Amino acid sequence: MTQIHLSGAYRIEHDLLGDKQVPLEAYWGVQTQRAMENFNITGVPISHYPNLIKALAMVKKACAMANHDLGQLSDEQADAICMACDEIIDGKHHEHFPVDMIQGGAGTSTNMNANEVIANRALELMGHKRAEYQYLHPNTHVNMAQSTNDVYPTAVRLGMVLKHKQLVVAAKQLKAAFDVKSEEFKDILKMGRTQLQDAVPMSLGQEFRAFATTIGEDIDRIQSMIDLLKEINLGGTAIGTGITADSRYAPLAVKHLSDICGHPMILATDLVEATSDMGAFVILSGALKRLAIKLSKICNDLRLLSSGPKCGFNEINLPEMQPGSSIMPGKVNPVIPEAVNQVAFHVIGNDLTVSMAAEAGQLQLNVMEPVIVYKILQSIQDLTNAMTMLSEKCIKGITANVDVCRAYIDNSIGIVTALNPYLGYENSTRIAKTALLTGKRVVDLVLEEGLMDNEELMELLKPENMIAPIDMTARMRKAN
Amino acid sequence: MTQIHLSGAYRIEHDLLGDKQVPLEAYWGVQTQRAMENFNITGVPISHYPNLIKALAMVKKACAMANHDLGQLSDEQADAICMACDEIIDGKHHEHFPVDMIQGGAGTSTNMNANEVIANRALELMGHKRAEYQYLHPNTHVNMAQSTNDVYPTAVRLGMVLKHKQLVVAAKQLKAAFDVKSEEFKDILKMGRTQLQDAVPMSLGQEFRAFATTIGEDIDRIQSMIDLLKEINLGGTAIGTGITADSRYAPLAVKHLSDICGHPMILATDLVEATSDMGAFVILSGALKRLAIKLSKICNDLRLLSSGPKCGFNEINLPEMQPGSSIMPGKVNPVIPEAVNQVAFHVIGNDLTVSMAAEAGQLQLNVMEPVIVYKILQSIQDLTNAMTMLSEKCIKGITANVDVCRAYIDNSIGIVTALNPYLGYENSTRIAKTALLTGKRVVDLVLEEGLMDNEELMELLKPENMIAPIDMTARMRKAN
Amino acid sequence: MTQIHLSGAYRIEHDLLGDKQVPLEAYWGVQTQRAMENFNITGVPISHYPNLIKALAMVKKACAMANHDLGQLSDEQADAICMACDEIIDGKHHEHFPVDMIQGGAGTSTNMNANEVIANRALELMGHKRAEYQYLHPNTHVNMAQSTNDVYPTAVRLGMVLKHKQLVVAAKQLKAAFDVKSEEFKDILKMGRTQLQDAVPMSLGQEFRAFATTIGEDIDRIQSMIDLLKEINLGGTAIGTGITADSRYAPLAVKHLSDICGHPMILATDLVEATSDMGAFVILSGALKRLAIKLSKICNDLRLLSSGPKCGFNEINLPEMQPGSSIMPGKVNPVIPEAVNQVAFHVIGNDLTVSMAAEAGQLQLNVMEPVIVYKILQSIQDLTNAMTMLSEKCIKGITANVDVCRAYIDNSIGIVTALNPYLGYENSTRIAKTALLTGKRVVDLVLEEGLMDNEELMELLKPENMIAPIDMTARMRKAN
Amino acid sequence: MTQIHLSGAYRIEHDLLGDKQVPLEAYWGVQTQRAMENFNITGVPISHYPNLIKALAMVKKACAMANHDLGQLSDEQADAICMACDEIIDGKHHEHFPVDMIQGGAGTSTNMNANEVIANRALELMGHKRAEYQYLHPNTHVNMAQSTNDVYPTAVRLGMVLKHKQLVVAAKQLKAAFDVKSEEFKDILKMGRTQLQDAVPMSLGQEFRAFATTIGEDIDRIQSMIDLLKEINLGGTAIGTGITADSRYAPLAVKHLSDICGHPMILATDLVEATSDMGAFVILSGALKRLAIKLSKICNDLRLLSSGPKCGFNEINLPEMQPGSSIMPGKVNPVIPEAVNQVAFHVIGNDLTVSMAAEAGQLQLNVMEPVIVYKILQSIQDLTNAMTMLSEKCIKGITANVDVCRAYIDNSIGIVTALNPYLGYENSTRIAKTALLTGKRVVDLVLEEGLMDNEELMELLKPENMIAPIDMTARMRKAN
Repeated sequence: MTQIHLSGAYRIEHDLLGDKQVPLEAYWGVQTQRAMENFNITGVPISHYPNLIKALAMVKKACAMANHDLGQLSDEQADAICMACDEIIDGKHHEHFPVDMIQGGAGTSTNMNANEVIANRALELMGHKRAEYQYLHPNTHVNMAQSTNDVYPTAVRLGMVLKHKQLVVAAKQLKAAFDVKSEEFKDILKMGRTQLQDAVPMSLGQEFRAFATTIGEDIDRIQSMIDLLKEINLGGTAIGTGITADSRYAPLAVKHLSDICGHPMILATDLVEATSDMGAFVILSGALKRLAIKLSKICNDLRLLSSGPKCGFNEINLPEMQPGSSIMPGKVNPVIPEAVNQVAFHVIGNDLTVSMAAEAGQLQLNVMEPVIVYKILQSIQDLTNAMTMLSEKCIKGITANVDVCRAYIDNSIGIVTALNPYLGYENSTRIAKTALLTGKRVVDLVLEEGLMDNEELMELLKPENMIAPIDMTARMRKAN
Repeated sequence: MTQIHLSGAYRIEHDLLGDKQVPLEAYWGVQTQRAMENFNITGVPISHYPNLIKALAMVKKACAMANHDLGQLSDEQADAICMACDEIIDGKHHEHFPVDMIQGGAGTSTNMNANEVIANRALELMGHKRAEYQYLHPNTHVNMAQSTNDVYPTAVRLGMVLKHKQLVVAAKQLKAAFDVKSEEFKDILKMGRTQLQDAVPMSLGQEFRAFATTIGEDIDRIQSMIDLLKEINLGGTAIGTGITADSRYAPLAVKHLSDICGHPMILATDLVEATSDMGAFVILSGALKRLAIKLSKICNDLRLLSSGPKCGFNEINLPEMQPGSSIMPGKVNPVIPEAVNQVAFHVIGNDLTVSMAAEAGQLQLNVMEPVIVYKILQSIQDLTNAMTMLSEKCIKGITANVDVCRAYIDNSIGIVTALNPYLGYENSTRIAKTALLTGKRVVDLVLEEGLMDNEELMELLKPENMIAPIDMTARMRKAN
Repeated sequence: MTQIHLSGAYRIEHDLLGDKQVPLEAYWGVQTQRAMENFNITGVPISHYPNLIKALAMVKKACAMANHDLGQLSDEQADAICMACDEIIDGKHHEHFPVDMIQGGAGTSTNMNANEVIANRALELMGHKRAEYQYLHPNTHVNMAQSTNDVYPTAVRLGMVLKHKQLVVAAKQLKAAFDVKSEEFKDILKMGRTQLQDAVPMSLGQEFRAFATTIGEDIDRIQSMIDLLKEINLGGTAIGTGITADSRYAPLAVKHLSDICGHPMILATDLVEATSDMGAFVILSGALKRLAIKLSKICNDLRLLSSGPKCGFNEINLPEMQPGSSIMPGKVNPVIPEAVNQVAFHVIGNDLTVSMAAEAGQLQLNVMEPVIVYKILQSIQDLTNAMTMLSEKCIKGITANVDVCRAYIDNSIGIVTALNPYLGYENSTRIAKTALLTGKRVVDLVLEEGLMDNEELMELLKPENMIAPIDMTARMRKAN
Repeated sequence: MTQIHLSGAYRIEHDLLGDKQVPLEAYWGVQTQRAMENFNITGVPISHYPNLIKALAMVKKACAMANHDLGQLSDEQADAICMACDEIIDGKHHEHFPVDMIQGGAGTSTNMNANEVIANRALELMGHKRAEYQYLHPNTHVNMAQSTNDVYPTAVRLGMVLKHKQLVVAAKQLKAAFDVKSEEFKDILKMGRTQLQDAVPMSLGQEFRAFATTIGEDIDRIQSMIDLLKEINLGGTAIGTGITADSRYAPLAVKHLSDICGHPMILATDLVEATSDMGAFVILSGALKRLAIKLSKICNDLRLLSSGPKCGFNEINLPEMQPGSSIMPGKVNPVIPEAVNQVAFHVIGNDLTVSMAAEAGQLQLNVMEPVIVYKILQSIQDLTNAMTMLSEKCIKGITANVDVCRAYIDNSIGIVTALNPYLGYENSTRIAKTALLTGKRVVDLVLEEGLMDNEELMELLKPENMIAPIDMTARMRKAN
């Protein structure tokens, strides 16, 4: 992030609490300055999430256009505000948004940061100096017919809508990487495992297809949750009653915002409820948690399947990314899945923070919204990074140990399950028990006992017959 | 719950591990008996959730019908199984389902409990004695073409589908109770509060309508999550590959199940994924958590609004349910909302348990499914009870202290916000500050300073003009 | 639990809210009756935790003795109260404590349940009828100089002190079971694994000793947390200021309580703080969570080590507790560890509930204490059951597959680490890499390259030299 | 943080995976370079926590000294390593620690980052060029007799020990600020509230003393948890068996470390257990969570007590830190406590991440340790900042509204509790009820009914008699 250079020179601004120095180079004003001094907690400024800043500017522009439509802002004022907003939407001036992501005031500092930067930049564009607020005031004009309590929730929702696209891209890439491997491994037979015990045969391709499928479901899920964020409370102002706003303002502002951002934003029907409700964030965070849970499960599986090389499952090889040990020469570890697991735990912890913050809302507002926004944006970001890392540095390079996989099937007792419909559960159980105790193969025991003839048995134990349902008409169950 | 009377007499059954005594009166068999002895943890048997038992029977019946269609079960066998299942669906024999809700084995004990009860009851219906499994075997026949790993997930999904109806009824009653109060209180003006500080006017009706709206949203949300549960893996058998199942079996079984339960159940497209994936539970639990969060927030508000009677907000009165104190005479406490808060925390804790259990799945199965099922059913149950308690014992009896609400508006400085568009932010700020310091009323200060004339001012401060957006055309903003 | 038989006959009692029917057979009175009707949530009555009921009676007895010492209760009144309490401490009348564990009112219903049962039983002992409160009143006499807000927290703390003994017994048995196995397996060599990859040799005994050690640490930790519970606020009455209590009362009551319960209870120095603070519960719950985390990790390990039998690690065998599958004959699963994992997730979820409830305290009281108490008692109970199950049904019966363990060492490349000090990290890395690529044994490669002589090498690779630090003086590192 | 200037020039290094470019200016080497490329997740480098880097250097120095004592490192090598470590301990070269806080490999990248920086800096000090590892090798020499698995846990424990001092300082300042206010407000009488309902009188000083007391308890608690971190596994090397370490090495290294860091570090008795166990982190994180819960409760109280100014409790005034609203002129909000609440939720979320990561340990190692370290260091940091902000920008400036507080007492019915011992519970209840219904004062009703004489009543209702226990001998209870 570009830092603004501060010469040490100051201008004086004032507000409800009195006068205060503001750096001469800053587009921000007195209220941002106070917020910077008040909140010195995480070290993460709101500019860390550019989509949030862009969304703020989009909302401010939409409001200015609505106010202009209603004759409340002059052409000159509206034009200047819109031009300033466009610059921010284009990625400029973000270094003038220094307020900490965790802040008191329910986002007032973030909103005022935007109001002040836009006002001062617009003043310049109008040919005035910064802080000549008599021509364009951060509150009276830029924030006209707005409250933090409708502008901030609207902007953060939009910011998430914008940002989640990266997540979806990364998730699709990950799904695609699993799909490729699924196809590549489709003929590699192996034993499936339930409860970590040998179960029945499957293909390695089926195992990887399940990874692809499960990620695919979460892409759908997250997108449907994101749609919930498009319902906004813009125009509700302070508490949803629309005080200070013209009765025609809200629909206008929402329409302009939809045009600007390219998403169909919808005005909530109960603006009082919409002002304090954090439900959409809770459920979105829940969907991110679900994705984290799935990624963690997948990475646990990858680590299990690649365990070894000599004393583990050793069915697959993960690409080697770095020497695994400072002491054990030659050791290579599954470092990429391990990192993803940790991101998952991080995201699940974030979800708890979101839940607690959502529960802490009181009466007409939830003042904890900034930490909710922080944690959701962080979860989206870190999940995006983790999925990109996982597909690029791990999944794409996975290879299979075909012989190991095959040997597991050959030695396994689990294939007796395929005979269950023909031998009945009790016979099959006896065969399985004997096989385990004596070390004899299931096939040999069945033939020894004359329970099936060889041809019949070989047919049943064909790989293609064990990894998918078969037509049993021809082969009537013997069990009855 | 009816308990079965145990005489102390036993029959001998046997399984893979050998012989074992089973109570003569029990429909359950040897594997259930082992599970009872193995898992002695929570004291909560699966029969505590009757919808789970009914769903199990529905699934078993559907499978028997499919197996009969395919000629794998005789008419007599299929009829007896279906009759036994129908009795369970009708609420009979539930006392024969004693296995602990927390159990190892991924639900195998629950599935075998069902297989054994159905087999023994069906044997009786066929004219045989219990445990004469040569005529109808719990595994070979009742569990034919089934695995715990497809039957159990299907049954628990269906159990939740059945059970959630009670939750929806309770939620709708609660919403309705808020709607009634919203209408009753629609003309009671009060001050809205943001960040616990006096904000701007609203009606008490608006406040209660927001409660109704937010619960209404969650009814929709939970119902859409429940739909996800209708996708099932029946026919996938052990690991989703359908081993032991005929290729025509799965669609048949799913169709029969849909007919039996009256819900359109859908076969998952990737049965391997569907076998181990807990995603639908995670997101349903997340939706229950969201409802809990909202209920907790509402109850926090109710407790705040009724705080007092002399030293608090005192805007509303909750019905008195019990003396509030063993030491403080005359004290009455908001005990009903307090209990709801606690249920909410309980449900949020349950959601964490579900998340951790979901993350712990390995390879082709999630063996932690029983605790997931336990916690979700418990959350549904307790939320249902809590909402019923809340609407019946609290919301319906709430009364408003109209005079207190009105006095807050009359004394408040917050009404200055309504003048903001006409005076501008800086003028308004100065007026507000003076009002607070001097104790003078905002109205008087505005008139004193000649900022507006009396008529104009009175118009703006009309209640109906402060609690909804107004047409500002006539009254051009002075601020510009 | 014995249920009381209710004939349907009633007596009339009254309180602040008016008259109400109470079952004739009940020792409880009108306030308990109201609470039963108000709170119908979990179905778990306070009598489900007998130590809680006993602790309540101990506290009530101690208070009566203090009041008698101060001349506020007559001999007859005090004697009757004490006798009634003694009966409850002996396990009698617990069926008269029917209030739901989740209740509003910060425990008032629980306290009044105790006051009423004790009053009515004492009235009988005095020769009066139940409800003849003019002779002995639940509030005026049994609850004299007490508030729910000091009596309830004191009783629940004491209840946990009493109850945790079972947990400690179960934990010690589990530790002992691991110690026995550690000794039994001390000469069985195996490969240790880090990050699921082959690492360096160790003994199976060392692995099991670590389990014993880690449980041992938690016994210490929980006992030190329990000590924090012995600091109580008895005598603080309603909000810690001691209103209605004589200045000599609190020390007297605490002294009597210590004598009665046999634990040195201590009066908190700041009773206002002690009344609302839930810190001791938070940290105790945290310690229970820690134990749950450790148990879950241990059970994960046991399931990994016993994975197989043919396609997994297969180093140990868990005792077979039940057939593992309804479809896969001969399969046996690690059902006991699986159940423990689920209990662990349950306890971790409970800890979150405790945290949220603790955070929700307001001003002079935490009204959420009942759910805190419920969850902690439940966690103690379920952890106790889980540990007993684990030691009895799993650990004691574990056997080792010595040959499998040994073969892992023989084939492993990880032993190269032992040569690191002599060959240097880069040489060792090269040897390891070659061994993996060629399939040659590390020993052979070292000898081939003439890096060490055979005798030296064999000495270094002696088992006893690889599983503990050795004296390296004789064998100067070659690496330098 | 100083950034190193990268010219774009490179040197070539190699490791197990082959050759790789490393920036010429970097002290780090090939393995750090790989880690930077592999883990690009949070954007937070390990150098963000300087105490962690210092602790790493202290451990490396201690190990070098032990190896030198045993004759395994030459004087020159040991001296150079120690000098390089001393520079890092002095705060130099931290910009050469760029690895992401979330990383796979269980800290191997962090350990190798330290090994490489120390080796290269030591090489310079020895007169060699960077990467001339034949003279001093990152693994063979700097990491001699060490594994990531003992060095990293030791260093992170020490890092927390060092870092927690700031937390304790901030907590003590906060406690002191509350103590000052407690003294300042000791004569201000007010009504205490339980369950948000008027309870009984207390002083505002008592309320603030409780805040001081509760923070004081957590200072003690955290310090006792920190002591648990002083038990380390240094010398256990890869899995706790001490492979590659001389039998005299571990005690020597621990002794040197204690001397260097000034804390008495202790060698764990079971190094195998100590290598994988995360118990100390879990319990420390639990203690941080407890502090967060208490801070959140306190801030909730501060926000309640300062609610208003006209429509709330309005007992205290928080210092005004910034204008409260972009729309509501004159509004001032409790922004500082609000920010603290959010930090608390953040810390509680972090604790969950720690718990899940701790549970995810497998066999001889917990590979999730990096995220545990990250979250604990972050929680310590953010809690420190939050407490400093709270004491400086809020507590110190709090003023009381004495008249409001007094008026609450005068109007309250709650004072009837003080009469309870004299009138009995039923009489008192009747008086309270009448007072509420009629609006009459409790005092007047008692006198009207002739229940007490005026003098007696006035004595009982003296403030000093209502906020502390009194000697009741003189005034025998009338209730009996």
